[in-house]
Formats: sequence, C-alpha cells, structure tokens
Amino acid sequence: MMTNAVDQQSAQGGAPASSVRLPLRPELADEEPYGAPQLDVPVLLNVNENPYPPGEDVVATIAEEVARAARGMNRYPDRDATVLRQDLADYLEMETGVHLAPFDVWAANGSNEVMLHVLQAFGGPGRTALSFAPTYSMYPEYARDTHTTWVVGRREDDFTLDPAHAAATIREVRPSVILLASPNNPTGTALPTATIEAVCEAALTVDIDGARPVVVVDEAYAEFRRPGTPSAVALLERYPNLAVSRTMSKAFAAAGARLGYLVASTAFVDALRIVRLPYHLSAITQAAAGAALRHRESLMAQVATLRAERDATVTWLRKQHLPDGSPFEVAETDANFVLFGRFGDRHAVWQGLLDRGVLIRETGPEGWLRVSIGTSAEMAAFRAALTEVLHEQGEESA
Amino acid sequence: MMTNAVDQQSAQGGAPASSVRLPLRPELADEEPYGAPQLDVPVLLNVNENPYPPGEDVVATIAEEVARAARGMNRYPDRDATVLRQDLADYLEMETGVHLAPFDVWAANGSNEVMLHVLQAFGGPGRTALSFAPTYSMYPEYARDTHTTWVVGRREDDFTLDPAHAAATIREVRPSVILLASPNNPTGTALPTATIEAVCEAALTVDIDGARPVVVVDEAYAEFRRPGTPSAVALLERYPNLAVSRTMSKAFAAAGARLGYLVASTAFVDALRIVRLPYHLSAITQAAAGAALRHRESLMAQVATLRAERDATVTWLRKQHLPDGSPFEVAETDANFVLFGRFGDRHAVWQGLLDRGVLIRETGPEGWLRVSIGTSAEMAAFRAALTEVLHEQGEESA
Repeated sequence: MMTNAVDQQSAQGGAPASSVRLPLRPELADEEPYGAPQLDVPVLLNVNENPYPPGEDVVATIAEEVARAARGMNRYPDRDATVLRQDLADYLEMETGVHLAPFDVWAANGSNEVMLHVLQAFGGPGRTALSFAPTYSMYPEYARDTHTTWVVGRREDDFTLDPAHAAATIREVRPSVILLASPNNPTGTALPTATIEAVCEAALTVDIDGARPVVVVDEAYAEFRRPGTPSAVALLERYPNLAVSRTMSKAFAAAGARLGYLVASTAFVDALRIVRLPYHLSAITQAAAGAALRHRESLMAQVATLRAERDATVTWLRKQHLPDGSPFEVAETDANFVLFGRFGDRHAVWQGLLDRGVLIRETGPEGWLRVSIGTSAEMAAFRAALTEVLHEQGEESA
Repeated sequence: MMTNAVDQQSAQGGAPASSVRLPLRPELADEEPYGAPQLDVPVLLNVNENPYPPGEDVVATIAEEVARAARGMNRYPDRDATVLRQDLADYLEMETGVHLAPFDVWAANGSNEVMLHVLQAFGGPGRTALSFAPTYSMYPEYARDTHTTWVVGRREDDFTLDPAHAAATIREVRPSVILLASPNNPTGTALPTATIEAVCEAALTVDIDGARPVVVVDEAYAEFRRPGTPSAVALLERYPNLAVSRTMSKAFAAAGARLGYLVASTAFVDALRIVRLPYHLSAITQAAAGAALRHRESLMAQVATLRAERDATVTWLRKQHLPDGSPFEVAETDANFVLFGRFGDRHAVWQGLLDRGVLIRETGPEGWLRVSIGTSAEMAAFRAALTEVLHEQGEESA
C-alpha cells in the first residue's frame, strides 16, 4: 500500500505523492546500500566468515546468559557495558600479553560502529581520514557518513606499506585520523611493528588544532596471524594517540552477534563515549558476547585449524598456473582469506566458480580475487572448482 | 597501565604521553556522555522504563529463538532483517489498523539509531532539524552528531503545539527534518491529527534543493495513549514525506533489547538503507525482538495496567497542593509518565524523594518533575514519599 501511495495522488487529500521528492543528501543520491551479494549457494567463501557454527556448548551458554539478561530487559542496559569490557580486556591480555584495564576498552555493534565513533569524535567536516589502498572498502563509507574527507596513499606492489611513503603522506595530508588494517583486507598483509611505529611517529609531527592525529590499527583478523607476526596492542603504552580495533566476528565465529571493540588510552575511549548513542549496546548483545568469550579456548582451537587450512590453500594456489602458463600470484596473508591472481578476466573466473556452487569475492585490485578460508571440505570444493574453471579457460584460449 | 601511560613519558621511546592531545572535535570538547544518573535505589521511576520484567514464557521464547540464531551466528545476519520487519509491519497493522508492507518498515538498535539514520540521510552540514520545545533531550544530540543545525520552536503553556505557529516556524526555518514527539517526552502531550496535518502541509510548501522536508512523528510511547488519541500511522498514505517511529523499549518492556523502528514510504526507508552500517542489526537482536513480538497479547495487557496506573497517578497528583496551598499543575499525558509541578525548588523535591528511595527525573521546564509509571507498589511508594516531602516542606515554609 505504501508503495502505491508514492505513485498516485491520494484520494484523501495531502500532496500528489508522485511529486514529493525526499531531501536525500546530494552526495548519497546515487549510492546503493553497501554489502556483498547474499547468494544462496553451497560454498560461501565471500565475506571472510568463520565456517564453523558455534558448538552446542557455546549455544547453550549464550541461551542461558541471554535468558538471564532477558529477565531484566524491561530496564535499559548498562550504558558502559562494564562487565563485557572487563571480559574483553582479559581476553586481549591473554591474547597479546599486554595488561589492559576495562576503561581502556570500547565496545560497539561491530567494528563498523567502533569506526563510526572514531570518525564522529576525531573526524568530521573540515577534517581528513587517511588510509593506504588497496584496503577495506567500508572505510570510505565511514568517512562519507561522517562528512570526513577521505584520502588514500598507496601500498607497494606486494601490498606492504613503505614506512617512508606513509610518513611523507601523513605530513602532507595532515589527517586527523589514520586507519591501518593489519592484517589488511582484502590483501591479508600484516604490518611490521616498525611500520606502525613510523606511522605513529609521523602522526606526532602533525598539528590538528593543537592536537595530534589518532592512529587506528584495525586488527579484525589478528587471531589468524602467523607465528611471529606482532599485534599493535604492544605499542599502546608508547602512543597515547594509538588505538587497536578488534572484532568477535571472525575468530569468535560471531559475525551474527555484531561485537566490535577497540583498545586505547582511557582518554581515547572517553572521547568515543561522548559520541556513542546512549545504550548503544543491548543487554542481549552484552550477554551473548560475554558467553562466547567464556568459550575462547575451543573457539581458538578452530582458529588454529583455519590457519593451517589457510597456509595449505596458499601453498596449493602457488602451484597453480594461469591459462598462459605463468604461475599465480598469491599475496602473503595473516588473515582467514587469500588474495590471488592475476587474471586477465577475473569476473569470468568468479562466475565460473559460482556456476560450480562456490561463491568467492571479486574485490581488490583489478585481476585479483579473494577467497575466504572455509572448512576442509569447502576448500576442497574450491580447489576442484577452480581447477575446472582454469582447465576450461585453458581449452578456450588454446 | 594505560591510564598511567597518558601521564608519564614512556621509557621505551615514543612521545611524552602527557603532551599528546587527541583531536577531539571542538564542539565536543566540553560535552559529557549523555544519560540519566544510574543510581541504585529501590524505586526507579526516572527513565520511563516498563516496570514489569518479561514473564518466564517470554524469556523462554527469547532463549529459544536466540539459541536458534546463535547456531548460525558464524554467518553475518540478514542485512535487511526481512523477517523482523514483516513481524513489525504485522504488529503495527494490528495496533493501528493500517496495512503495511515490510519494506515500509525500518528497524535499528533503538529509536536512537533510527533517528541517527534519518538525520544522516536527510540532515547534515548546511541543513536544519526543527522541533518544538520542551521535547526529548536526545534530539539535539542526534543533530550534533550529524552536524545538523538544531532549531526549536515553542509549545504553548499547556505543552500543546499551535498549528499556526508550527506552520509559520517551518516556513521561516526551512528545516529538512521536522521531529515531532507524540506523545511528547517529557510532557506526555499527544498531537491531534489536525496538528500533524498542518505540519505536513507546511512542509510541502518548503523547498530543499527541489525536495520537501521530511516529518518524523516519534511515537515511542504510542501504545500508552488514551482511547481516542490517534496515531500518525493513519496519515502515512497521504504524506510520502512523513514517517512514524516506534520502539519496543516501552510497551514491549524491552529497553534492554534496543529495538527501534520506523514506518514510512518505501522510498523513505530506502534512503535510510543507504546510511545504515551494513549488518547493523545483529541476528541475536532480530531473534530476540521477533520472540517478544510473539507475546504481544500478554505484553499489551500489562500496558493496559500501566495506563490505568497512569490515569490514577494523574488523578492523585491533581488533588495535591504545593506548600503555598496552590494545587499542582499536572500535564495531560498519553504516555507512561507524568510531568507535574510547579515547584519553587524542584531539586529539593527530587532530592527528598531520592532520600526516601524513589528516583524520578528532574527534567522539563524549570519547576516541573517527571515521574515514570511503575507498578502499583512503586506508585504507592512514590505517593507516600511525595506526601512526606511536601509535608516537610510545608513545615519548613510555615
């Protein structure tokens, strides 16, 4: 009914509906809602989800904790999510060895909302956010949604970040917010400590109304990093303008629960508290996230399995050849996905896989494709499908 | 540890932490995080919560539905919350008698986030949002968070809105967003249909870049309205620039679950879809909200009890007198709270009640206080405490 109302003049008076335009902001006029295609195919390897559903023990704890929260849900939730932030601080201390207090931790509905809070507090009109491409495709959307100017520097051909280029770009662009994904999406590239230090040091030379830019290292995929790859959490003590964001979507297999978090100085977190909507994190979400954190050990065992599957996938991909006989290029990866290429017609490869029931992501620089790491069976299906597609293309080009 | 890091120079290098200022936006520099004091007292009548915890039947359905959602929570949630939006459309159709399609409904983490989406889509830099004071104290925060200019017109002494004043203000201010709370918070005042029509008609005379302002009627407390008080949902068919927002926080006793929603034309909803963060509504929240909606009948029976308690509270308050012998003023209310006064020193009355274990809200125009409607026992405690406070003040002034 409402749809029709927009197309016809109401018989009851009011405006001729078809003539009424809504005042959508001009910069949004041609935009589409963000999101990867949600297709119903057997093997979903397109959005870096964890392929393992929570076990029944995890489900039972979540149901129990949510029931407890629901019994009091006529009341507003704890605005400061104190218990959850303590649980997250404890987890991160276990994961990184760095001691953290709950007031150094911020939590919100997904890393998305954490980043929105960062840009609301420190970005905005007249300010600039900087990152280095190729990187996560949501960053420019956060900037757009907060009226922050969006600038990207470049990564090298192997997707690493040159510290000298990063520092020079920071001094030139004078951003108030610097976003570094590590491991980076969609490339999988983790940043060495020295690069993050160079970025933080360069940030300290920039003046933004008497303050220094903030640096946010987005470690959404940190738990998947290879042995020896550092976390930026270890640098927090040295740089009060540094923050590290994390998520429960990936390692905790909780993309559906929407829990992102950030660790930084208390002063940094307090700034985010000003712009958060009051009661932004429901009592149900706080309870479900806390429940999942109690099962960290079994969930981390799955992460180890996924890391091994990821390394095996990289090894296999490096042995494959393009129709012209040249070997695949496969990006170094510390995440639960692999970027590989380069294809003359990547869309044809993507479509060929989809035709065989395997959905991966057509993203990253031209010629590359990204595959998320699934179960052993899913990766076998991916390898079989890709082998078929390459064979078919080889015959066509022969 | 992090707290100390801000106050001392790190021995490991990096910046002298105490000298590093964060680039908080200047307009946020003196702001405090929003929120009523969360005090631990026996009778909480300060934030318009529903006093009835969900029954065990409701809790069981929520636990069951959340467990079902948790089994798939390694995957991202349905970005469009299709099932929940259909459930909300069905509920609203039952409540208002107006047929609605799911694509006419938008849902987010509380009305807060719904309003943020509205202002992100239709407000922003260079644009103005208009309401009529006294009204909900969060509105200017939404405007601030989206860099929208905030303007208020006035309500009459009895908190009604004069249609001619509203129309004239709209033509003068030329807002792109008009927010009308009905029933209004903190006054309880519902708007007659004719007033909303006058606002919508005035909006249709204003040009915003070739478009017309949007009008959002915030019906957070709609289920508490008295017999004969209309809902603006009935006007949606006539005004494609009109939206009505609702929440499950109050009537559904689900403040802790954070589920706000909005109904409007599909075109209006599509604009909000552009600015929403992807996967903003967790699978857990979608499941919990859907579960609560299945218990609408028992929850609405509690609403009827609260309406009766509200009317009894108004009747009782109208019989009370100030220390100088003059009768209380008590605002007409269609909500689950009552605004009453006027006190020479409202803070003393608020404090006197708090000293007796009853927390109400010091809000609204100077001299007024707002009490939320609780259980019969809570309202008896409120009446007893207020009687004592008034008696004490009468003795002091005698």
